[in-house]
Amino acid sequence: MKLYRANIMFTPSPEAFQVLEGGYVAVNDNGLVEGVYEQLPAEYKGAEVTDFGDKLLIPAMNDLHVHAPQYRNQGIAMDLELLPWLNTYTFPEESKYKDLAYAEKMYRRFVHDLWANGTMRTVAFATIHPEASKLLADLFTTAGMSAMIGLVGMNRNGPDTLSNTTEEAVRDTEALMNHLKGNKLVSAIVTPRFVPSCTPDMLKALGELARKYNLPVQSHLSENRSEIAWVKELEPESTCYGDAYRRYGLFGDTPTLMAHCCYTEGEELRLMKENHVYVVHCPTSNCNLASGMAPIRTFLNEGVPVALGSDISGGHHLSIFRVMQYALQISKLKYAESKGALKFLTLSEAFWLATKSGGAFFGKVGSFEKGYAFDALVIDDADLNIDNYSLPHRLERYVYLGDDRQIVKRFCAGKEIAEPKI
Amino acid sequence: MKLYRANIMFTPSPEAFQVLEGGYVAVNDNGLVEGVYEQLPAEYKGAEVTDFGDKLLIPAMNDLHVHAPQYRNQGIAMDLELLPWLNTYTFPEESKYKDLAYAEKMYRRFVHDLWANGTMRTVAFATIHPEASKLLADLFTTAGMSAMIGLVGMNRNGPDTLSNTTEEAVRDTEALMNHLKGNKLVSAIVTPRFVPSCTPDMLKALGELARKYNLPVQSHLSENRSEIAWVKELEPESTCYGDAYRRYGLFGDTPTLMAHCCYTEGEELRLMKENHVYVVHCPTSNCNLASGMAPIRTFLNEGVPVALGSDISGGHHLSIFRVMQYALQISKLKYAESKGALKFLTLSEAFWLATKSGGAFFGKVGSFEKGYAFDALVIDDADLNIDNYSLPHRLERYVYLGDDRQIVKRFCAGKEIAEPKI
Repeated sequence: MKLYRANIMFTPSPEAFQVLEGGYVAVNDNGLVEGVYEQLPAEYKGAEVTDFGDKLLIPAMNDLHVHAPQYRNQGIAMDLELLPWLNTYTFPEESKYKDLAYAEKMYRRFVHDLWANGTMRTVAFATIHPEASKLLADLFTTAGMSAMIGLVGMNRNGPDTLSNTTEEAVRDTEALMNHLKGNKLVSAIVTPRFVPSCTPDMLKALGELARKYNLPVQSHLSENRSEIAWVKELEPESTCYGDAYRRYGLFGDTPTLMAHCCYTEGEELRLMKENHVYVVHCPTSNCNLASGMAPIRTFLNEGVPVALGSDISGGHHLSIFRVMQYALQISKLKYAESKGALKFLTLSEAFWLATKSGGAFFGKVGSFEKGYAFDALVIDDADLNIDNYSLPHRLERYVYLGDDRQIVKRFCAGKEIAEPKI
Repeated sequence: MKLYRANIMFTPSPEAFQVLEGGYVAVNDNGLVEGVYEQLPAEYKGAEVTDFGDKLLIPAMNDLHVHAPQYRNQGIAMDLELLPWLNTYTFPEESKYKDLAYAEKMYRRFVHDLWANGTMRTVAFATIHPEASKLLADLFTTAGMSAMIGLVGMNRNGPDTLSNTTEEAVRDTEALMNHLKGNKLVSAIVTPRFVPSCTPDMLKALGELARKYNLPVQSHLSENRSEIAWVKELEPESTCYGDAYRRYGLFGDTPTLMAHCCYTEGEELRLMKENHVYVVHCPTSNCNLASGMAPIRTFLNEGVPVALGSDISGGHHLSIFRVMQYALQISKLKYAESKGALKFLTLSEAFWLATKSGGAFFGKVGSFEKGYAFDALVIDDADLNIDNYSLPHRLERYVYLGDDRQIVKRFCAGKEIAEPKI
């Protein structure tokens, strides 16, 4: 059992923060939270307490959509839309991951910088390359950070240097899964890039693979108007873009993440709700690629699960705190656009999306309720706390003004995580 | 004469960066740029050159709209819209600036953090308090940074603790102007808060004051729908919100800044163009306060001058680089909304807004062309330059990923500016 004392804040529900000023959290030997307490309970009297003083203790961040092999392109090439951006910058960069030395250089930095920004759980697209994808998984394992790694399937509309066959995509995903057997923190996720990149044959085979091993699935959905029009051409028998995934068994038969959903409504919304398919909201990316504004309030009203993603390198920053800012801000622009009909997100709602709602894809993750994995960040915000703010205002200032400098400790599944080697 | 060598980038025009790899800039004894050169000209051979090596040298940032006395509130209270936000958080905070000790504590930090973020020219709202406003001006003067300081006029719809009379607003602005006589970098600007805060009598008197001394003017315009409706009630004879300022001589009779302009169109747009009134685009604030998206491409197409502002504490961050990101991103959402009709901003356009276009309000500022004040930042982006990016991509990465850590030197009007004392 470990005991920590700090100013503890988390969101058991989206409506409000639970705040414990100088409170305690007990973490058992399995890395799970036993409880949070205003006062140290009698049973723990005399036990050793690690005291973080006036610092903040909050759940760690979860990034449910990020392209690891686009890390070099973070913050460049922002003057293009999705489809030309893919062809001009993204596909050529991802093709480089055939070279394991290049992959190691970039993936090491990627994992390091996730750590720096306080992200302890990540669902990542890798590439078509099996060796580089294993390497990425191994780097997460060595770091002690949790991840789901997607060996990407793509066999049409990409360059030859970045295409695999249906057989390869299935075989290499299976191999990745087997490589990670018994690994408690890192696992494989079935990853068709998106409908335009995968023939019906590949989509069908990946759907079968997911069901065979009960593997989760991730892909992209309704990000951009040109893409949606393209899918309509490619899949004329589907009632909507989401239905194209559904028809191939990739839309909730197993736990499923769909990134973006800027234009999801009607039938697609209904299908997501029915099949408990997650929206991964990537507002930085949706701004940078001129995609649009996802109707997050509508998803929440309808009970569709929502998580947050940095979507590097459509997104420009790894920090999920930064993504939280944009989630709040985009919801406010939707509010203005709808003349107040769609209520904007509050800070506690955005925080809940980043922690408990996103964390749920990994199980009991993202909260400090009993039985949750102790994924946590210690924030030393002394340099931001210039005038005796309340604890909720200190957290709000950290979300809006802070960065990696104020994160002084990180925990994943109960263990303190040291800085990964670059 | 001083000579600097670095990787020099700036925007003589919005369309493109001028890039000098390992180039030179000569700065004369008046702090003005003599020229930039690919090779050191013969006349300077043998002269001492300060070599910044592989670092970037760019024009410093200009913040054309910021509320200095809202600095404590930066990053808090984001769950409200403009009018309730003003009454609940902003007015009570500004009322504290009657206390000079409080003002000094906060204003010192404000000036320090502008410095940290690379902003060398600032147009700031102060408060109604003459002593605190002089103090703010003096802190800029001591730092060696340039500013225009607005003693705020407001005599209706605010709390008693934050109201002055027409006579006081005129007298105290005049006093501030006289206090700063002969100061080359810091001066006074006429500052009616906005139409709802000022009676016609006060607006008229401030318009006369501006014309009498040819003082510039700043205020707020068409930020939010409720505010516009309110102005319509208060000023039924004006053809639009902007016309209310015009009728009182506050809309371009002297150089004029109008913050926000989210809903400016038609007659108001025409008036701004005719009178060369600046739009100060504050996209972070417009998101945070759920105000809306200003049509910047339309302003640029029409030839209305545009600058950028952090608008603390509606905006959440002082960095104008951060504001640049939002200017780009909001223009992309406008592009998506208009289905491509309004072209989004490019990086060079956003950079130009932050430097040369905003700087023009101060004179020849914001470029490295001959005759421009040498306001500059030296950026050491080694930690961001992880894979031999091109110079334009290094700058783009700095804009999207960088922060105060990479700014290693700052110059204003030719002088290197040391860290101001907190």
